[in-house]
Amino acid sequence: MSDFKWLENGSVTDAAGFKACGVTAGLKKSGKADMALIFSEKSANFAGVFTSCVFAAAPVRVSRSKVRSSAAARAFIINSGNANACTGANGLANANKMCELTAEALNISAGEVLVASTGRIGVQMPMDIISKGITMAAAALAADGGNQAAEAIMTTDTVPKACALQVELSGGTVTIGAICKGVGMIDPQMKTAPHATMICCITTDAACSNELLESMLAENTECSFNRITVDGDMSTNDTCVIFANGASGVTLTAGSADAEKFRAALLAVMQNLARKQVMDGEGATKFVAIEVNGAPDTAAAKLCAEAVANSLLCKTAWFGCDPNWGRIVAALGYSGADFDPDKVDIFYDDKIVVNAGGDAGTPESELAEVMKKREFTVRINMNQGAGEYWVWTSDVSYEYVKINAEYHT
Amino acid sequence: MSDFKWLENGSVTDAAGFKACGVTAGLKKSGKADMALIFSEKSANFAGVFTSCVFAAAPVRVSRSKVRSSAAARAFIINSGNANACTGANGLANANKMCELTAEALNISAGEVLVASTGRIGVQMPMDIISKGITMAAAALAADGGNQAAEAIMTTDTVPKACALQVELSGGTVTIGAICKGVGMIDPQMKTAPHATMICCITTDAACSNELLESMLAENTECSFNRITVDGDMSTNDTCVIFANGASGVTLTAGSADAEKFRAALLAVMQNLARKQVMDGEGATKFVAIEVNGAPDTAAAKLCAEAVANSLLCKTAWFGCDPNWGRIVAALGYSGADFDPDKVDIFYDDKIVVNAGGDAGTPESELAEVMKKREFTVRINMNQGAGEYWVWTSDVSYEYVKINAEYHT
Repeated sequence: MSDFKWLENGSVTDAAGFKACGVTAGLKKSGKADMALIFSEKSANFAGVFTSCVFAAAPVRVSRSKVRSSAAARAFIINSGNANACTGANGLANANKMCELTAEALNISAGEVLVASTGRIGVQMPMDIISKGITMAAAALAADGGNQAAEAIMTTDTVPKACALQVELSGGTVTIGAICKGVGMIDPQMKTAPHATMICCITTDAACSNELLESMLAENTECSFNRITVDGDMSTNDTCVIFANGASGVTLTAGSADAEKFRAALLAVMQNLARKQVMDGEGATKFVAIEVNGAPDTAAAKLCAEAVANSLLCKTAWFGCDPNWGRIVAALGYSGADFDPDKVDIFYDDKIVVNAGGDAGTPESELAEVMKKREFTVRINMNQGAGEYWVWTSDVSYEYVKINAEYHT
Repeated sequence: MSDFKWLENGSVTDAAGFKACGVTAGLKKSGKADMALIFSEKSANFAGVFTSCVFAAAPVRVSRSKVRSSAAARAFIINSGNANACTGANGLANANKMCELTAEALNISAGEVLVASTGRIGVQMPMDIISKGITMAAAALAADGGNQAAEAIMTTDTVPKACALQVELSGGTVTIGAICKGVGMIDPQMKTAPHATMICCITTDAACSNELLESMLAENTECSFNRITVDGDMSTNDTCVIFANGASGVTLTAGSADAEKFRAALLAVMQNLARKQVMDGEGATKFVAIEVNGAPDTAAAKLCAEAVANSLLCKTAWFGCDPNWGRIVAALGYSGADFDPDKVDIFYDDKIVVNAGGDAGTPESELAEVMKKREFTVRINMNQGAGEYWVWTSDVSYEYVKINAEYHT
């Protein structure tokens, strides 16, 4: 019943008037692609949300200031392999220099270029490599280069993440495409920014004001990237940017039915990528949806959902396919939410596990069947109000420890 | 320069007038000891601090109510292998029954008996086994049974935890002894209760009012058990109780120099055990002290110290002996504390790692030497105020995942 159609192998270049590419500049020891460029052939409106980490990286500070100061943008230069975070005045100058070099190569102004970086913190950017990479990227831009760009921004990701869909509006068809990366340093605590070592670029050929783009992006971020957690750690570099170049000839007006339809389609794109991030979470063997309802209020529901999603004991139990629910009630109990424990029911998918705060008596063998699935839901009905919240999370495995104990970039 | 003397192999039975034992009732599949009893030959004043988890276990609710209602106590019955948590009215009746059975066996009143349990959540107590165990324990009480009791309360602990010291006061020598367990479900977030699947029993032969005992216990808990975290998970069953039976003939008076000397000695006992808990943290290969100073205020220092101590990315990096400090600044940045990142210095032991928010240039080989140690300090000097806080924590290893993915009690 949805109003939109997913495109096969879709990405940022499915929206009309966008080109992209991924190139290998030489930032990674592995020799894999490490720089991506997304370019709009015509001037585009844009909006962005960013990490709220106090140690915001230099590219975050540069791009965030352009969201405030620039009316339009045309390019987004992204590198993996170096986060350009905690690099001081020199790092800030380098992030600005990346925009300038990209602007020169594309013959646009530096104010029209956004920048994002991901990788090791605290190391100055090797600007000779970056400079070469930007020249290569400007020359490599292609109308079908979106999936290459998705590959070039990967760090510990095992698969590139991209999607695109078309939505029918009264004035015609518009396309939304997106790429993102991020499978570690992922946590949902912030209010108006995505938080993950995540970088996301969304493109659309709809025409839309910066204000409307920003309001849709912020609202949808709350129900997508801000609902996922892999490890409870927020990054210094989180960046999610949307460009709208109007190439479809269809204009969105704030408050219109079309704008709402577009927002819902944009949410589908953002949830699609958020889900892919958790599915590819570092070392993840499980995708677990935590759904809380019947809470005294939304704040209590959020505290409960996030406590369970971030509990190391719950996450290791899921890895072990252990249906023991004691760790879930312990997490609810210390979440900081105030509630009556004796009213709480808990379900694994459709199997009741806890009934009125105590064991529901469902045979452990039935519960173990649910826990063995790649994906399941822990539903917590608190039966004491209308508060609801959900979070998507993953388990913590040996592989998670391996990746993070041995990841010396 | 301390005023106290540690006793070799000390435990709860070093304080005069206390007996204890550990017995095997049959609660654990492993066949190991599973019930402990601590007994004061004469009536003792007492105080306790407990979990603040909303799902407080039945024994916590029973013991907490006795702290409020009973003037004195003489016995503490503890079982491992079953937490008696989330067990409803039946569980509450069983916790009370444990006190009654213990009182009968010792010929004292049920109001003088405290109870604590640790183990699996959500399973009713097998009262036939418990009943038999209480009879066995009452018969096994011994003046040197403290270390047996320490063994009987272990769950995933690999070593029993106990200590005792003597402190010289103006009126004579008093002894403080203690045992505890707890190496998982350990987190420092609460205000006036220890939090860990931790159970601690402290004995002293000093005479002391309940009020003074409670104030010393609460104050010291803040700087011992509330400063440790293994996994960020707080338990349903945390209990820390102190008994003072006056058998030494030395009385403590609130506000006296002796009382302060005693409090400092009690703190040493509690920190000794807190440290042992972290050293024996599930799967731990590192003991890491996080020390924050120069913060804008104490609250900011606490947020920063706890964010680093609970960061899964920091903990896995420590396991990997990785000196990369990016994860530490990321954790500081998302901690919720408001501060100037460009003033922050970070040290690993005495080696400077971060200088004014950026890389300090210390060779990685020197830092790696620190990270390879069993025990080191991460000192964060924020250089912007007088706020200080510290936390002791451990790393997250393959073994941690193994213990918690495969611990199906």
